[in-house]
Amino acid sequence: MTSITDFLFGRALATHEERAEKIGPVAGIPVFGLDALSSAAYGPEAALTLLIPLGAAGVSYIVPITGSILLLLAILYFSYRQTIHAYPNGGGSYTVAKENIGEGAGLLAAAALMIDYVLTAAVGISAGVGALVSAVPSLQPQTLHLCLGILAVITFINLRGLKEAGAVFVIPTYLFVLCLVGTIVWGVIKAVMAGGHPVPVEALPALPPATTMVSAWLILQVFSSGCAAMTGVEAVSNGVKAFREPTSENAQKTLTIIIIILMILLAGIAWLANVYHIGATDPVKNYESVLSMLLRAVAGKGVFYYVSIGSILLVLALSANTAFADFPRLCRIIARDNFLPHSFASTGRRLVYTNGIYVLAILTGALLVLFNGVTDRLIPLYAVGAFLAFTLSQAGMVLHWRKTPGKHFHNMLVNGLGAAATGVTTIVVLGAKFLEGAWVTVLLVPVMLSVMMLVKRHYREVGDEVASHSPADFTNVEEPIVITPIAGWNKVTQKALRFCYAVSHEIRAVHVSAGDETDSAFCKDWSMYAEVPAREAGLPAPELVILDSPYRYVLLPIMEYVLQVERENPSRQIAVVLPELVEKHWYHYLLHNQRASVLKTLLLVKGSQRIVVINVPWYASV
Amino acid sequence: MTSITDFLFGRALATHEERAEKIGPVAGIPVFGLDALSSAAYGPEAALTLLIPLGAAGVSYIVPITGSILLLLAILYFSYRQTIHAYPNGGGSYTVAKENIGEGAGLLAAAALMIDYVLTAAVGISAGVGALVSAVPSLQPQTLHLCLGILAVITFINLRGLKEAGAVFVIPTYLFVLCLVGTIVWGVIKAVMAGGHPVPVEALPALPPATTMVSAWLILQVFSSGCAAMTGVEAVSNGVKAFREPTSENAQKTLTIIIIILMILLAGIAWLANVYHIGATDPVKNYESVLSMLLRAVAGKGVFYYVSIGSILLVLALSANTAFADFPRLCRIIARDNFLPHSFASTGRRLVYTNGIYVLAILTGALLVLFNGVTDRLIPLYAVGAFLAFTLSQAGMVLHWRKTPGKHFHNMLVNGLGAAATGVTTIVVLGAKFLEGAWVTVLLVPVMLSVMMLVKRHYREVGDEVASHSPADFTNVEEPIVITPIAGWNKVTQKALRFCYAVSHEIRAVHVSAGDETDSAFCKDWSMYAEVPAREAGLPAPELVILDSPYRYVLLPIMEYVLQVERENPSRQIAVVLPELVEKHWYHYLLHNQRASVLKTLLLVKGSQRIVVINVPWYASV
Repeated sequence: MTSITDFLFGRALATHEERAEKIGPVAGIPVFGLDALSSAAYGPEAALTLLIPLGAAGVSYIVPITGSILLLLAILYFSYRQTIHAYPNGGGSYTVAKENIGEGAGLLAAAALMIDYVLTAAVGISAGVGALVSAVPSLQPQTLHLCLGILAVITFINLRGLKEAGAVFVIPTYLFVLCLVGTIVWGVIKAVMAGGHPVPVEALPALPPATTMVSAWLILQVFSSGCAAMTGVEAVSNGVKAFREPTSENAQKTLTIIIIILMILLAGIAWLANVYHIGATDPVKNYESVLSMLLRAVAGKGVFYYVSIGSILLVLALSANTAFADFPRLCRIIARDNFLPHSFASTGRRLVYTNGIYVLAILTGALLVLFNGVTDRLIPLYAVGAFLAFTLSQAGMVLHWRKTPGKHFHNMLVNGLGAAATGVTTIVVLGAKFLEGAWVTVLLVPVMLSVMMLVKRHYREVGDEVASHSPADFTNVEEPIVITPIAGWNKVTQKALRFCYAVSHEIRAVHVSAGDETDSAFCKDWSMYAEVPAREAGLPAPELVILDSPYRYVLLPIMEYVLQVERENPSRQIAVVLPELVEKHWYHYLLHNQRASVLKTLLLVKGSQRIVVINVPWYASV
Repeated sequence: MTSITDFLFGRALATHEERAEKIGPVAGIPVFGLDALSSAAYGPEAALTLLIPLGAAGVSYIVPITGSILLLLAILYFSYRQTIHAYPNGGGSYTVAKENIGEGAGLLAAAALMIDYVLTAAVGISAGVGALVSAVPSLQPQTLHLCLGILAVITFINLRGLKEAGAVFVIPTYLFVLCLVGTIVWGVIKAVMAGGHPVPVEALPALPPATTMVSAWLILQVFSSGCAAMTGVEAVSNGVKAFREPTSENAQKTLTIIIIILMILLAGIAWLANVYHIGATDPVKNYESVLSMLLRAVAGKGVFYYVSIGSILLVLALSANTAFADFPRLCRIIARDNFLPHSFASTGRRLVYTNGIYVLAILTGALLVLFNGVTDRLIPLYAVGAFLAFTLSQAGMVLHWRKTPGKHFHNMLVNGLGAAATGVTTIVVLGAKFLEGAWVTVLLVPVMLSVMMLVKRHYREVGDEVASHSPADFTNVEEPIVITPIAGWNKVTQKALRFCYAVSHEIRAVHVSAGDETDSAFCKDWSMYAEVPAREAGLPAPELVILDSPYRYVLLPIMEYVLQVERENPSRQIAVVLPELVEKHWYHYLLHNQRASVLKTLLLVKGSQRIVVINVPWYASV
């Protein structure tokens, strides 16, 4: 509410301002496409790395393998176009699978996607910082700090709201696209003009000799690694609601542009790698990324090279933002179905799902700290989650068309093809990457499913328990027995006691004995200041109860007394009136014991249905 | 209360068990004497280090300088014996200075002592670990962790209570005394038998050539450094109450033994250093402590050497315990005079002043972390505090005897001599060590004085404000206006509403509008389930207030409404009844929003004298 909060997080937005926070394709591409586009920087590289043992011959395999990946991408594109159209309120894999296959399938997709988003965020940040660190080796010892710093910036931007997130990411994303597409066009022109045998502007490292023969297993591994380039395609369909009217059209337009750019990048990189004979280099010694070699080969190591490398670093690091745009939305949808705590579904002051952002930031931060900022080993884990979600979503779409009245044979075919292709790919990736880490996903998914089921069960049980469809019973309402702890006679006590009479005439004041001469002084005060005026006002005098405390505890004897009175009066309500001195300044709380607060908590935790706590504050003016 | 707490911290002790927790001289020496005795391990060393530039001639100066330190110690001893006798309830410098000179002098002594205790704890632990680390250099990188580990152990032992603290420290303390006194006696016998020119069992490093001439300033510096050996003498007088009957006699006995042992150690080390020509070594290269050289010279590097070095390390590290025994007691005395938060004066479950222990542990830990476990630079700071306290205490004693009826000329003379000697020493130490860090103490003391004054002022102001010596006014007690926030119709709501009628007939139910179709459903429920039965029971129906909330806030509109009702009814009390679902398991709290708790806090902080909060809990059984 203060101006500092406004300055940091932006002013609070009213519900009716939501429309203005919605985005079009120009902002949609950076927000929902960063993940998909940035994967062009590591997908081909991951595939080429596995081809190193094949030597010079290996590089030529990249073209057909990329071809198959592009085919899969095209199938996915048409599948998801249909999903966006059919689910204009956001058709993430969770929604589509749940509505068409069943709750279990929906939760399976949700668990897979949640894992995927956390991994995307961690791997994206870590890959960006990794690239930066290989460019500027002196930053090496700061790897983890850089990762956490970027995580903090992304978290902060997302807490400010979606529109601004889009604005911040527009420049690096478009710079990245311009540089890479430019390089590819330029490279293709050069290569075509050189009759398919272009001469690199700068010398490239020679391809190593072949050490192994090509095998079907190797090709499967390469394909599986290359599939990492496809994660993030789901993002747009999940976030349809974030687009401005006409939402479906804007979302489809955004998806189309993202997929076209991604295809150009993947195809161009693969073809140029082949004609320029660019293979991956050893990741440990004399490492140079494929994109770096490609840029040097086409354009040389000039200003353009450095601008391009800079944009790659930036986009990789910021690709984590896609996870931040989508993870909270996914959690919200699941929470609205009671499978996650409801707090994930409440929008914060800037119309974003604050809790989802916090949870993602914490999990990502934990992964980064755990892996010390180097998360290469996490890459195999996340293609599994993504393709599992793809499959469930497309299979759900097939059932969706079957249920929908009218002829949808063509639509069913498209989604069926998508489901089959992604299903096969899921099995291939799982098989190829099981030992390298995909087993973690296989273990984690059932755990998450169980947690979500338990959350739902708890909500249902509590809901059933408190549900009421009957009128209240206001007959025979009796005044409560009031118990008030009193340490000594002062204005705070006096005020609380007066309030006791406002709610009941049956008052018991409890005083914990100090075991010394102060007890009798208190009793004298009490009779003079409380009992006498009560009788004079025609009220029954409050009963004074002195409690012994051999262990110098103050709260326990009071607690025990309250529970005893409750037991002895099974039909009555017990109201515990707690006088509390409220200090003017927070630091004054250090000076006073917090007995009233502790007693409040104790009574709440150890209390029973018939015990009610009344807090009578007394405000200090000094 | 659980058995784990009992196991860790010992069972709770009743007030009547306090006597059994009191100690005699055997346990008193480790508890209150560790600080003083352990200083024999660094006092002479600190003095000899400053004599290095004088070369071989320098070592001979140690005998007369130690003589003057012993003289000062003797004066202090007789002074403090009298203090213990005159103040059997604990006559720390604070008490003596406050009662005899004035509040200001008392606080000055208290501030000086508090600084001193924190420094003692940090320097003791760090010196012990430093010695250990020079013996086992591979532990070097773990210095800070070792320091914090020892701090944790000491804190933990002290939280368990005094008697056990004594028991744990008995063995290392007596081992230390036995080893060192044994070495000194053995060394003196050898030296006397060799006609004052003993031959070391093992070769010692040669004394370096002289690089400077002796000067009065240098001698003053050496004396000031040697005075570090005297801190901790105050401890016994502060803790008289911890001794068993006869308390004064037991405390005096303890002090006598501590001082005698300390004098033997200081005198023996000085004399033997002179006859064996042992000087301090360069602290940076080829460092060996004076005690290590002395042990080698007298006994050789055998089992006895290692046992002795071990006991020295242990005693140094544990000397921090004296601070832990005394600092909480000092804080308690000051807190009882309202100069520190009252929580310092409440005994915990084991009859120790828990908060004082925590504060000391935190401050010591902070110093250790700040100085990375190497606190040599702190040593000059703490002699100033100790001697300032000594001076104020002895000066106070002089005035005490003047006020006491009867002839006390002899007593006055002893304490007057003590005051003069320690006063001069304070000025000497402050002058000699001002630039080396004593200025920090000079700056810190006024800050602490101001804080203590402010604390006292706050207690006085609040006390004055709430003080009441008049009877309560129980006339014209009116029932409160009850406001209860209601989100939807369920058993939690129903129960709270019934309680509303138990305390008042003027009830306003506030419902924050969601701005959608659920509002009208709620209104229908409300009229059917609440209004109709109220009228049927012959009660006025509760008024339903629907609040708009364009920013989706739930709590703020309720808060604003409560304050508005309060303004509109200046003569009425407003009772806000908050229904709250209490979960059976703590982890279920993650699943529900904490609106009731937040609203309780908001109402307490932003509320006014006329607003009372009533919490009606509903306990979930699942």
